[in-house]
Amino acid sequence: MRVRELVKSFEPYRVEEGDYPVRLDKNESPYDLPNWVKEEIFEELRELSFNRYPHITSMPAREAIADFYGLSPENVAVGNGGDELIRYLVRLFEGGYVVTTPPTFSMYYFYAKLNGIPVLEVPLREDFTIDGDAIAEKAGNASAVFIASPNNPTGNLQPEEEIVKVLDTGTAVVLDEAYAEFAGKTLWRLIEEYPNLIVLRTFSKAFSLAGVRAGYLLANGEIVDALYRVKSPFSVGVMTMAAVKVVLRHYDLVERRVAKIIGERERIRRAFREFTYPSDANFLLMRLNAYEFLLGKGIAVRKLAGRLDGHIRVTVGRKWENRKLIEALREFLEVRECG
Amino acid sequence: MRVRELVKSFEPYRVEEGDYPVRLDKNESPYDLPNWVKEEIFEELRELSFNRYPHITSMPAREAIADFYGLSPENVAVGNGGDELIRYLVRLFEGGYVVTTPPTFSMYYFYAKLNGIPVLEVPLREDFTIDGDAIAEKAGNASAVFIASPNNPTGNLQPEEEIVKVLDTGTAVVLDEAYAEFAGKTLWRLIEEYPNLIVLRTFSKAFSLAGVRAGYLLANGEIVDALYRVKSPFSVGVMTMAAVKVVLRHYDLVERRVAKIIGERERIRRAFREFTYPSDANFLLMRLNAYEFLLGKGIAVRKLAGRLDGHIRVTVGRKWENRKLIEALREFLEVRECG
Repeated sequence: MRVRELVKSFEPYRVEEGDYPVRLDKNESPYDLPNWVKEEIFEELRELSFNRYPHITSMPAREAIADFYGLSPENVAVGNGGDELIRYLVRLFEGGYVVTTPPTFSMYYFYAKLNGIPVLEVPLREDFTIDGDAIAEKAGNASAVFIASPNNPTGNLQPEEEIVKVLDTGTAVVLDEAYAEFAGKTLWRLIEEYPNLIVLRTFSKAFSLAGVRAGYLLANGEIVDALYRVKSPFSVGVMTMAAVKVVLRHYDLVERRVAKIIGERERIRRAFREFTYPSDANFLLMRLNAYEFLLGKGIAVRKLAGRLDGHIRVTVGRKWENRKLIEALREFLEVRECG
Repeated sequence: MRVRELVKSFEPYRVEEGDYPVRLDKNESPYDLPNWVKEEIFEELRELSFNRYPHITSMPAREAIADFYGLSPENVAVGNGGDELIRYLVRLFEGGYVVTTPPTFSMYYFYAKLNGIPVLEVPLREDFTIDGDAIAEKAGNASAVFIASPNNPTGNLQPEEEIVKVLDTGTAVVLDEAYAEFAGKTLWRLIEEYPNLIVLRTFSKAFSLAGVRAGYLLANGEIVDALYRVKSPFSVGVMTMAAVKVVLRHYDLVERRVAKIIGERERIRRAFREFTYPSDANFLLMRLNAYEFLLGKGIAVRKLAGRLDGHIRVTVGRKWENRKLIEALREFLEVRECG
């Protein structure tokens, strides 16, 4: 028995595990589900059999999502988090490599590498927008192009006309809209026009369900069919599906919370305009090398590297958390200037 | 965009989706969790944050399982069903192919093929036991050997001395003990002696949690560490972990139910001894070509093929379900004899 070299070459994915009073490092919603929503989930679960396998292709959750969008369940696939779907999408299509646009969400690269699939990187431009022409040039032999909009960790929406340039190549485009609720803009309707478009969404951010693990994609029926040929059967459990059904019934609550988060996002940005990029998401990219300083104050944020060395990514939290963040960052700037 | 030929070559995994009053086709527990156990799970969930990502390597569930066995969490990995773990185990180790022992659980083959890994089959002997010497001969260049004990769909435990022959080769051995609770025998303690042994267990059978998706493995720390390098982070949600913790507190209930199921299993077997193989699991292999006949009576069982053509696999159900099964099978035999 010898563990594969490829496996050993991966460092375990790490998060800051310490016990920090303010957690602004994982782009979660700062708001838990209200108790009455949890009770509604429990009410559903009292009626469900835990001893029976869930529907093999998660039909109850797909139907709830399809209803929400006015689509057919044949256009919806549900995963154990968006991650499970990315894992399949990197190798669903013919082609020699996948295209990513760094700096962006690291999981596209992770799952491609895990499957021995080469990754061709077409970096974001200076202003963090994608270069549609440059991607289109490389797309011909690619199995899929991964584009996040809003992009993580830079926070910006990608211009529709650049995305369309890539879509027009006919190559599969995975448009990761995990943060779309905070942008107030989504391109999911383009799936009707582009059979090569896969829109990836999640319940982990605006819907407050990061703990439950549920993501989904919207795409044409051929792609959804292909995915379910190779997807682990039964991968989404009855508890997860009940949670999805219930939160979709309370989208008004999600919208109110999104509005609050956007308000807070802009408040933080105004306080540090000089160091902060505009954001269409629930986090802010800041040109401040303040990771260790904030950790010392009990505030966990994400430290960035590479092209974004010296930057931090800060999730928008509750009002009191953001106040602590703002105070700490003011202190950081004072110390820096006077030190 | 072209879906990969490999993907298209897979038929979607199918289960009998019809609405049959008696479901004896998926080796589930016929007993749901009692309401008071569900309420205990809800009580846990009221205290947990749904909006925060679960522990990245599922530590709360690993600790609960480790406590149950008197092991360290470093010897435990938890998956979104045993399936998720099999998916990683087929490609965790160096080697040119995996070894399986048909007729056996189809998912070892499925995940190997999905990853482009060749499968070398060493068929079970006439009496459905594994041939330890024959496997050992092939094990040298294998990345892993998959052995189910009790085996699905034949129901028998595999002889310890044959398993040990394979373990002695030093190749990774995945011993799938999904049904061990019904056998009253397990080899998990051998993980201390054999660093190449991986014992796979599940909450989907004896623990009545098929709907929730939770499986785990016990193995030496090097293997668990390797697995978590490539495993999707956060793959087991807080609801799943709460369910696992609670059911482990009520193992006495599991034991009482297992005893009932074993009693029922033997009752069915006595009724059709001539056609039924001995079983150490919660199902029976029957040499009766009765699949369509039973379906016509509203009873879903598993139809087998290949070497087991003309056989059915029947999950042991509740007393009233088994009574219906016995009646229907008696009728089937009468019709067959008189027809």
